[in-house]
Amino acid sequence: MTPQRVTLITLGVEDLTRSKAFYNALGWVDTRPQEGVVFFQMHGVVLGLFGRKDLAEDQGRPGATLGTGAMTLAQNFPTEAEVDAAYAAALAAGASALKAPQKAFWGGYSGYYADPDGHVWEVAMNPFWPLSPDGSLTLPED
Amino acid sequence: MTPQRVTLITLGVEDLTRSKAFYNALGWVDTRPQEGVVFFQMHGVVLGLFGRKDLAEDQGRPGATLGTGAMTLAQNFPTEAEVDAAYAAALAAGASALKAPQKAFWGGYSGYYADPDGHVWEVAMNPFWPLSPDGSLTLPED
Repeated sequence: MTPQRVTLITLGVEDLTRSKAFYNALGWVDTRPQEGVVFFQMHGVVLGLFGRKDLAEDQGRPGATLGTGAMTLAQNFPTEAEVDAAYAAALAAGASALKAPQKAFWGGYSGYYADPDGHVWEVAMNPFWPLSPDGSLTLPED
Repeated sequence: MTPQRVTLITLGVEDLTRSKAFYNALGWVDTRPQEGVVFFQMHGVVLGLFGRKDLAEDQGRPGATLGTGAMTLAQNFPTEAEVDAAYAAALAAGASALKAPQKAFWGGYSGYYADPDGHVWEVAMNPFWPLSPDGSLTLPED
């Protein structure tokens, strides 16, 4: 049995400077500089950027080709307008468009973009999932 | 500018039943059943399991082959013994071993495993990163 939590999300990137610039262009502030890694504090979770080759080595499989796309990170927003604004901000920062925000079959509104390394972000409004005032998400009881 | 946050992490999986069973075997409790998707509440963040084909379609690129490995999710623990226990629990639940927990060059202790679809989890103890009582992580000030 392990605790039901995640404390650090690490994105393997080709060019740390390029990736740091991309996330800084979203307005995100990284912590104090460290050699070979960049951290962004979120609410109770940290996002890290780390060289993709270094990450493969750290995972115990040096030289492995690590893939992207099958794990997505989502930012939820209270309104469709905020989803549109976040999507536009990401494209302006250099993201690749995957799907422009649109009505989703499940009753919400959602779009997708990819960061410079193909890491996929969703921006969404889910009317059934109210956000906490601090922007964190706790699923409502039935 | 977008808020510096993630609210939902989605893992694209081949077999939802198999993946749900894997995470349940870690002792994790999913929320009420929904068609085609499984959710686990974490502290302020939700982990979702969703069909890999469905995810590719949702991302606006039906038929795309989505890769894994270049984004890792980490669970931090206060002690090496807890890292060892979490790693053992994951293997017992059917995870693939990538790297057994060992001393890391940065002064901590870390191991890696992969879930049934190749999504990579790290289990680690970082002596410079004290966890909050609720298990969340806020990086210390300098």
